Amino acid sequence: MGQCYQERYTIPFDQSDVNGKLKLSSFLPYLLSLSGRHSAQLGRSDKKVFETYGLLWVVTDYVFSIDRLPSFSETIRIETKAVCYDKLSCQRRFIVQDRQENTLLQVEAYFALMDFKQRKLVRIPDGLLAPYEAVQVKKIRRSAVYARLEKAQRATYPIRYTDIDLNGHVNNSVYLDWIQDALGFAFLKHHVPRTIQLHYSKEIMPEKAICSEWLLEGLTSRHQICSEGQVNAQAIINWEVI
Amino acid sequence: MGQCYQERYTIPFDQSDVNGKLKLSSFLPYLLSLSGRHSAQLGRSDKKVFETYGLLWVVTDYVFSIDRLPSFSETIRIETKAVCYDKLSCQRRFIVQDRQENTLLQVEAYFALMDFKQRKLVRIPDGLLAPYEAVQVKKIRRSAVYARLEKAQRATYPIRYTDIDLNGHVNNSVYLDWIQDALGFAFLKHHVPRTIQLHYSKEIMPEKAICSEWLLEGLTSRHQICSEGQVNAQAIINWEVI
Repeated sequence: MGQCYQERYTIPFDQSDVNGKLKLSSFLPYLLSLSGRHSAQLGRSDKKVFETYGLLWVVTDYVFSIDRLPSFSETIRIETKAVCYDKLSCQRRFIVQDRQENTLLQVEAYFALMDFKQRKLVRIPDGLLAPYEAVQVKKIRRSAVYARLEKAQRATYPIRYTDIDLNGHVNNSVYLDWIQDALGFAFLKHHVPRTIQLHYSKEIMPEKAICSEWLLEGLTSRHQICSEGQVNAQAIINWEVI
Repeated sequence: MGQCYQERYTIPFDQSDVNGKLKLSSFLPYLLSLSGRHSAQLGRSDKKVFETYGLLWVVTDYVFSIDRLPSFSETIRIETKAVCYDKLSCQRRFIVQDRQENTLLQVEAYFALMDFKQRKLVRIPDGLLAPYEAVQVKKIRRSAVYARLEKAQRATYPIRYTDIDLNGHVNNSVYLDWIQDALGFAFLKHHVPRTIQLHYSKEIMPEKAICSEWLLEGLTSRHQICSEGQVNAQAIINWEVI
């Protein structure tokens, strides 16, 4: 089930990190633009959803399973489909493969619809998802449980103007940058993520600074992004030494 | 003169700012990847230059002339060519046009070759630039004079892991982000740059914070990026109210 869409993509220089590996935070906007092209092909472009309903899709959760991060100038194949949906959210899967059709990584993205004016999540309109041929379920299951971190380490980041997107809030890809970055250059140069679970709970508006808090135990790091005493996002990452 | 190369490009969501206008700092890597494709077509790929000489192209200056910034989802045409070169540097021009062939912006980029191991600029090897059919000149002229700023306003930015590129230093596009960002959200939301002159004098390595300093007089802002008491880059921007 699920109407599939696919593209090939070659990893550009600016999406490669100092190790020559794909920067996940800059890959996320690419995945979302790809899902946008899929939706447009099905007559469900973001523009149409906005003009018809005054709604926009926002990501509430990501789950990454990574076998190998693709490298600079490597050509990959990305396949995506909407897997299932319930009253409030939709689960989309991205599968990234190399030229030999080995699966490099898989991303589950969970979307919800936000009313642009009221900044509130709303029920998915009847029929909107029909062309995706996804399975309707009673409730989409999410596995991660995010406890609020206590006595965490902290790093402060100013929000850059370019972190704000057309929706008027911090783009969801920036959170992953803040989350990973807090662990420091030396750690990131010698570790790669194997799984990432990321949950967004509250959008961040311009002109604030944020706090990226973390606790590292063995090869598992737990994270939260906070601003003005509120938790905006939480994450759990399992790492491997390289 | 000058062997031309061109591509069409549609501005994606993640390269659009809160006003729906092109983010120049994220457009720069795209321009450089495009110039890389041009060079590869002429048998002068970055990989070949590195493998043959142990050298890599770095940008020393940019000069932007902007009539109108393209908008989210707008399709543009980008034409580039190497204009001229001297012993140490090469001037490349990018012209961006809309569908009606109006020139939206022009970017002059000045490149030099850096020895990867010694981190020093070196003379351009004989014959390397021949396929570009650019004009050889005695000395490339640069117009801007950058005085060191005194009593400037300052903003501090942590260097993010993702600011570092495969060359092991802060990517040149990040400087423009820091430079513009220091002026603040309210200013940037209501102003667009008309001209930008940007000069890089010293690369920035990982694990430091930088200072983005600026002075705004009328609609002209002067900037410098500093780390450890040294000036790494300077810029002059002329703005227009929107």
